[in-house]
Amino acid sequence: MKHSYWIWYYGDYEIYHLSKLHMRREQRGAFMPSMWHLYSPYPSVFFEKKLVCEAGTLTAYAMGEAHIAIDGKRYPMGTPVAVSAGEHTVTAAVSNLNGLPALFVESDVCPSDGTWRCRLARGESLPAGCEPCFDTPDKTPDVFPFAYERKLPVSAEAREAGVLYDFGAETFGYLNLSAANPDATLGVYYGESVEEALGGEDAILFEAVCGQSEYRLRQRAFRYVYVEGADPTLNVTMDYEFLPLIRRGSFRCDNELFNRIYDVCAHTFHLNCREGFFDGIKRDRWVWSGDAYQSARINSYLFADPAIVRRTAIGLGGKDPILHHINTIADYTTLWIIGLYEHYMTYGDEEFLRLIYPTAVKYMDFCRARLNENGFLIGLDGDWIFVDWSEMDKTGAVCAEQMLLAQAYKTMAALSRLVGKDGAEYDGLYREMIGKINAFYWNEEKGAFIDSYQSGKNHVTRHANIFAVMYDIATPVQRESILTNVLKNDAITKITTPYFEGYELDVWGKVGELGEIEAMLDSYWGGMLRLGATSIWEEYDPTLSGVEHYAMYGGKFEKSLCHAWGASPIYLFGRYYLGVAPTSPAYATFDVEPHLGGLREMEGTVPTGNGEVRVKMDAHRLSVRATTPGGTLRFRNRTYPLPPNEDVVIEY
Amino acid sequence: MKHSYWIWYYGDYEIYHLSKLHMRREQRGAFMPSMWHLYSPYPSVFFEKKLVCEAGTLTAYAMGEAHIAIDGKRYPMGTPVAVSAGEHTVTAAVSNLNGLPALFVESDVCPSDGTWRCRLARGESLPAGCEPCFDTPDKTPDVFPFAYERKLPVSAEAREAGVLYDFGAETFGYLNLSAANPDATLGVYYGESVEEALGGEDAILFEAVCGQSEYRLRQRAFRYVYVEGADPTLNVTMDYEFLPLIRRGSFRCDNELFNRIYDVCAHTFHLNCREGFFDGIKRDRWVWSGDAYQSARINSYLFADPAIVRRTAIGLGGKDPILHHINTIADYTTLWIIGLYEHYMTYGDEEFLRLIYPTAVKYMDFCRARLNENGFLIGLDGDWIFVDWSEMDKTGAVCAEQMLLAQAYKTMAALSRLVGKDGAEYDGLYREMIGKINAFYWNEEKGAFIDSYQSGKNHVTRHANIFAVMYDIATPVQRESILTNVLKNDAITKITTPYFEGYELDVWGKVGELGEIEAMLDSYWGGMLRLGATSIWEEYDPTLSGVEHYAMYGGKFEKSLCHAWGASPIYLFGRYYLGVAPTSPAYATFDVEPHLGGLREMEGTVPTGNGEVRVKMDAHRLSVRATTPGGTLRFRNRTYPLPPNEDVVIEY
Repeated sequence: MKHSYWIWYYGDYEIYHLSKLHMRREQRGAFMPSMWHLYSPYPSVFFEKKLVCEAGTLTAYAMGEAHIAIDGKRYPMGTPVAVSAGEHTVTAAVSNLNGLPALFVESDVCPSDGTWRCRLARGESLPAGCEPCFDTPDKTPDVFPFAYERKLPVSAEAREAGVLYDFGAETFGYLNLSAANPDATLGVYYGESVEEALGGEDAILFEAVCGQSEYRLRQRAFRYVYVEGADPTLNVTMDYEFLPLIRRGSFRCDNELFNRIYDVCAHTFHLNCREGFFDGIKRDRWVWSGDAYQSARINSYLFADPAIVRRTAIGLGGKDPILHHINTIADYTTLWIIGLYEHYMTYGDEEFLRLIYPTAVKYMDFCRARLNENGFLIGLDGDWIFVDWSEMDKTGAVCAEQMLLAQAYKTMAALSRLVGKDGAEYDGLYREMIGKINAFYWNEEKGAFIDSYQSGKNHVTRHANIFAVMYDIATPVQRESILTNVLKNDAITKITTPYFEGYELDVWGKVGELGEIEAMLDSYWGGMLRLGATSIWEEYDPTLSGVEHYAMYGGKFEKSLCHAWGASPIYLFGRYYLGVAPTSPAYATFDVEPHLGGLREMEGTVPTGNGEVRVKMDAHRLSVRATTPGGTLRFRNRTYPLPPNEDVVIEY
Repeated sequence: MKHSYWIWYYGDYEIYHLSKLHMRREQRGAFMPSMWHLYSPYPSVFFEKKLVCEAGTLTAYAMGEAHIAIDGKRYPMGTPVAVSAGEHTVTAAVSNLNGLPALFVESDVCPSDGTWRCRLARGESLPAGCEPCFDTPDKTPDVFPFAYERKLPVSAEAREAGVLYDFGAETFGYLNLSAANPDATLGVYYGESVEEALGGEDAILFEAVCGQSEYRLRQRAFRYVYVEGADPTLNVTMDYEFLPLIRRGSFRCDNELFNRIYDVCAHTFHLNCREGFFDGIKRDRWVWSGDAYQSARINSYLFADPAIVRRTAIGLGGKDPILHHINTIADYTTLWIIGLYEHYMTYGDEEFLRLIYPTAVKYMDFCRARLNENGFLIGLDGDWIFVDWSEMDKTGAVCAEQMLLAQAYKTMAALSRLVGKDGAEYDGLYREMIGKINAFYWNEEKGAFIDSYQSGKNHVTRHANIFAVMYDIATPVQRESILTNVLKNDAITKITTPYFEGYELDVWGKVGELGEIEAMLDSYWGGMLRLGATSIWEEYDPTLSGVEHYAMYGGKFEKSLCHAWGASPIYLFGRYYLGVAPTSPAYATFDVEPHLGGLREMEGTVPTGNGEVRVKMDAHRLSVRATTPGGTLRFRNRTYPLPPNEDVVIEY
């Protein structure tokens, strides 16, 4: 038998698992529904494979009601069927209203795999969806392929009315209680902090159990667990549930704090890499497009796993009908589009782009139906103009949204050309938008882009100005002005989320001011670590103290203490210190432009498509080794080719 | 506690159950998928109820993950929650990817019922879906509320290698085998005819079982069951599964054949009235819009159940995205629209019309995107131009389709006005279409509408001409010409399906030529009964003989012998003999215009909204009694008011 894989309607695996995970949020014992529309797999799907073969057999299996047919003659599931030598069309139909319709064909002549085609009752056929891990009839694609590892608490401490368990660091999985007294009601309180675990019903996650001697509780995030009513004989373990990703990127330097930041960021990020890129592992456990945009950049320098980016993009893109912006947030729709091109640069992956392109057009059209009289994107019908948790003048058309819309137009022009369509209309929209952004938002007096042209307040925040530099919307003159008048100007409200801090530091990296990055790593990320963080928080305000740090959204412990958007240092170290970036898709060509910044020495690895680049540098010596061709080392205004698997060493 | 009902997103109950039933077709042991696109319920739904109340409690239950919230404070399912006296907004969220998200709230102050509202993440709120039978937490709406009755075979006859069981007439349900030898493999072959049951793998439905002493096999239709390998001790029963509808209409006359036809039609029709109107109970067991259009007319004179018409219309209408015509058939889309107004005339039901109207507009737009340069509906992208199983010149734009499109425009004009919108555009389209139909299709020489203006063949079939009279598209002069040159012209190919025979006889009824109806009842329906039919067939060709009658679609027994579209005599007797029809919605006013035709005497009942009309007539005396006001008796060019609950007697 040849190797077979479960197949399904292209995109429905991702949509199914993202819908499933968006139904798992709980808060203080009650279910929290996703605030956005969820989609189901199509319930009735057809598959087809044309082949010329020797005589053989096939046995089909399905999730749902199904038949398989050879040249139109239908057979049931689970029964071996002879296939004669010659040319055949093998088709199958699978219908399933309670899950993901999927097919598995065991055969020496026509095993099911990604070369099959799928279609609905009408419309063009697509390549069948397929993932390498679902390769036996038993490994069905309705069960997401997580890995598991049993873990024990590092300490158990008797408290007034129960026992407090500490697992040593933020983790996620199933809590197991055994040797429990069946007559006792156990109150299980989870905490990312000790205070939360001991916070009673102020904790986000808790559950009362009774009547059994063994419990396996649902997956939750925590470092601490307080079991009220537990006696010392209670046996507590947890099954860590995680995506078995391989760390392909690495970074080490002489600054031990930075090394710890890197490690804590990697741990934070890994916990949030699951069916898609999660925001935070305790509270939402949802996939938010803006958070995911930044996660995709971090992923490029740590796991370099294209599959999770695809799953995130497909799952968030959904299907008809489109009822609202992605996650209901205007900026998150445009970031979803922008991310598609960055994905292409990192991994190539043209087929994915071709398949997601129609969805991108739909969201672009959705945005274009929400422009004001000047062509600026505004919020309608409950659209959320988020940008960041920060003060901002959101009157009318908000500048940061227009920066993103411009970049989305530019991306759509590039994507259109990639899929063989004309990008000229989007090019025109982009040029027009840049002109209008300058006309309406650039304030010469402030030397900055203002938030709103409609309020008359001429208020400046960092956000639009950061995007202007990030996406090269600012001219070189405007850029200088922005750096001076906005980013280095302490009178302009500081960023408080690691989310936007990531963008701000990206700008500092881009303009080569690594000192700004190091200062922020020390004060901001270092600040959290000095408070004992074992993972990076959703927000950090150094002016708060003690348990105040854990409050957000009006709840005492509502802040997420393990939030993916805090992991941007991984990206920053790889992108601006090791200095590796693709200059053509999938690292067919790439630049290596290392900078020590304020470090004395560093070494690390950046994944480059199927290979990697290893950089080692101190004050006197730089050594670079790439395992794939196409690399160019840029150092002190000179360039050096990087032949594969050779050390290029520069001493100075 | 007040009376509570399960509630769901409006329309999703119907869509869920129609998708489910469209996944149940099997053919010779293999699953047969629906050839049209199926839809799922929306996986994430929100509910709301505003109320002012005394202090009370509520306990909520859900199908799916859910919370209920009072003024924004969330509570889990299954837990009693106090509701204080005063004004409250109660909301709930239910998410379910594996079924129908639904909510049940037990409460003395805010029980869940049809006064609640439902909505998605965006978009307007609708009244929550609700059916009276789902009124306890245990009676969940994922289980369709069928009734069951145990039945025994009327005979068991040993054959060569097994036993043949006869249940006396066509039936549907679960076959039970008990006291079976667990070592024996039993081959269970179902037949609507003896020949089919004994036809081995030519039968449509069969199954082999082994290893148990008791079996309960899946629901199937049959009259006969042949159990190969059965010994005489095998105990065989069946559980008849049916919708508990009440026969409100009746008809009896001096012609015993007609009485038997009425009874067999009623039996045939009842078997096919389930989640929606089925085509036939053995083979497809699907809901086809054209078949359902005629079923709705039959239903008006037998069960007068508006709920099954609504379920059929909502389930077939589906939701976004619309990929093709309803059932993929162009004529079935227009008949779906046309049926909405006929439903309104029979039952009133304005709220349903308001809720289905947006879907009707979508299908109308779908049709209008498939017009040729002359504005005629044509087949594109695999659209099926069905009309009937009959020879017809289907070159280019087919006349019968334009007749239906015209009537659909007229219907949309009326529906638009009903829901408070302007119908003028549809009025214009209707007038224009009538003009064009006459210009392109009326052939003066033939005195008839031709099938195609593009082929140059000027071929005439009955179909378009029947619709022209049915829908008053033909002028009085054209009508006379059609009756003479087409319908009474033996050179024009005869109708062979009861489907179109129903339309043809509707025309004869409409023009008062009841002799034509009686002749056809005798030869066509009577022909089947004389061949031993216990239910009406999908098609009947008197020129065939013996087992030839059971063949269709290239299969020996593929013809359905219990097909709903054969039950039109029920409609014809009620509509043209008893002569009862609404003249305003829901029988607020109605006409009773009885005709004996060639009968000597008749009596019967027609449901009229909440009441009924009873008619008894012979050659000398007519007696009519209506239980509701608004009736007018029309007899021999005179009119008589029908006061409720009074016998109006005319002797002559």
